[in-house]
Amino acid sequence: MSQTLKVGLLQAAFGPDMAANIDTVKTLIREAAGKGAQVILPPELFQGEYFCKTQIAAHFDRAYPAFEHPCVTALQPLAEELEVAIPVSIYEKDGPEYYNSVVMLDADGSVLGVYRKSHIPDGPGYQEKFYFKPGDTGFRVWHTRYGRIGVGICWDQWFPECARSMALMGAEVLMYPTAIGSEPQDSGLDTAARWRRCMQGHGVANVIPVVAANRVGNEDGQVFYGTSFISDHTGEVVCDLDREETGVLVAEFDRQAIDRARASWGVFRDRRPDLYDTLV
Amino acid sequence: MSQTLKVGLLQAAFGPDMAANIDTVKTLIREAAGKGAQVILPPELFQGEYFCKTQIAAHFDRAYPAFEHPCVTALQPLAEELEVAIPVSIYEKDGPEYYNSVVMLDADGSVLGVYRKSHIPDGPGYQEKFYFKPGDTGFRVWHTRYGRIGVGICWDQWFPECARSMALMGAEVLMYPTAIGSEPQDSGLDTAARWRRCMQGHGVANVIPVVAANRVGNEDGQVFYGTSFISDHTGEVVCDLDREETGVLVAEFDRQAIDRARASWGVFRDRRPDLYDTLV
Repeated sequence: MSQTLKVGLLQAAFGPDMAANIDTVKTLIREAAGKGAQVILPPELFQGEYFCKTQIAAHFDRAYPAFEHPCVTALQPLAEELEVAIPVSIYEKDGPEYYNSVVMLDADGSVLGVYRKSHIPDGPGYQEKFYFKPGDTGFRVWHTRYGRIGVGICWDQWFPECARSMALMGAEVLMYPTAIGSEPQDSGLDTAARWRRCMQGHGVANVIPVVAANRVGNEDGQVFYGTSFISDHTGEVVCDLDREETGVLVAEFDRQAIDRARASWGVFRDRRPDLYDTLV
Repeated sequence: MSQTLKVGLLQAAFGPDMAANIDTVKTLIREAAGKGAQVILPPELFQGEYFCKTQIAAHFDRAYPAFEHPCVTALQPLAEELEVAIPVSIYEKDGPEYYNSVVMLDADGSVLGVYRKSHIPDGPGYQEKFYFKPGDTGFRVWHTRYGRIGVGICWDQWFPECARSMALMGAEVLMYPTAIGSEPQDSGLDTAARWRRCMQGHGVANVIPVVAANRVGNEDGQVFYGTSFISDHTGEVVCDLDREETGVLVAEFDRQAIDRARASWGVFRDRRPDLYDTLV
């Protein structure tokens, strides 16, 4: 593998038309690839509007078997053409079970596998426990053509256990597709700053870059706050987008330099699993 | 217990004279108590200069049995007089074993117990593995008169496992006595920003305030960077000190409001211990 790893993300608004959303994602992936990105992250569930605001049975119809999902089959040829790896966030149906999943595409368009969101939120505006069964895959780190990528999904990003596990499994970068914004129960509650701080903390604690892609736009009063970012192995934000813009971010990391920083920092040397029983 | 919990810290430089250092700490604890602080955190190993820069056998003489340590016996009457709880950081000798420990004093001057630092760093300027055996107490949460306080020690603060464990054990606030500053192997390396970011991350992930007390001063070329702070349950810094000043910080938290925020945020509801085997 090369000395550097160049990661990217895209931020956009999504509407009810899946084909239009896929076109938006394709256009932005092309833009990020044009800037050299090798692994490119779209936001969570870009197939449509974020449908989890309420509990409506008809929304289950939005799910597809993972490898037949239109977002997956549409992006496979693009991954192959541009030679980029893409974590594709989808609503997955597996027989009678429904999951919030990521299908990982490698840079030849092949499917590396599926990760199912482990932590499922539930609260006003985010009724995910109605729609998604908690994932059964365990955390996954993908050995892509360009490097080892750990992918969590949205609410997973609030759990240090998930980030640490992926780092212990060898991840070189953590990626989180996201859909987060306003809170209908409290118009004064803005979680954007803590959202970022929590993932910056994972970056420091695991000496690892983090890529977080959120959506923007106002969907029937639920306003998604964007502020997608890429942070380095010290948790410092190296580039970001604002609360409304559509666009891409690309950042390059020196793999050897980060490996050396992680080794000499010593946190993985000094962990005490014998004292961590409380966690499990 | 009262609805509010008022926590404090002190930041200062320390020299070779233990009695003078204890006087400094006493004066600043009085100042913080005067501002209403109920639990007051001094920095790590304030008994003297930070002696772990090099490996010198004579420094082992600095250790005392925990309950006979001069810093402990000197602060017990003050804790009782001011009715404040104090986590006292000491160099502990237990027979042939040496630990980097905290003796927790409750607000009547009584000893609640000892916590021994679990994660021991080792690197240029911080030769702690020579002086301290990794702690054998496990993480501790202290039921003080004013609330449940989790205390980690310096390098512990870089481990999400420690913070999460203390939160799971019922801590309402996390405290970290610290001695951190310049890195002799790289004069351009300044870890102050990531030091803070890492603990802010614990604050967000555990919906809990954090109190971090560092020392200041130049000790034979090793410059401690202060920047002690108190952050709230969203990881936002509510007050801090600069890189050189001597002083105290005091912040008040509404226990019921934070309990409610923690419960409704849902991270402790949604954890997946069945998926955390990698951590242990």
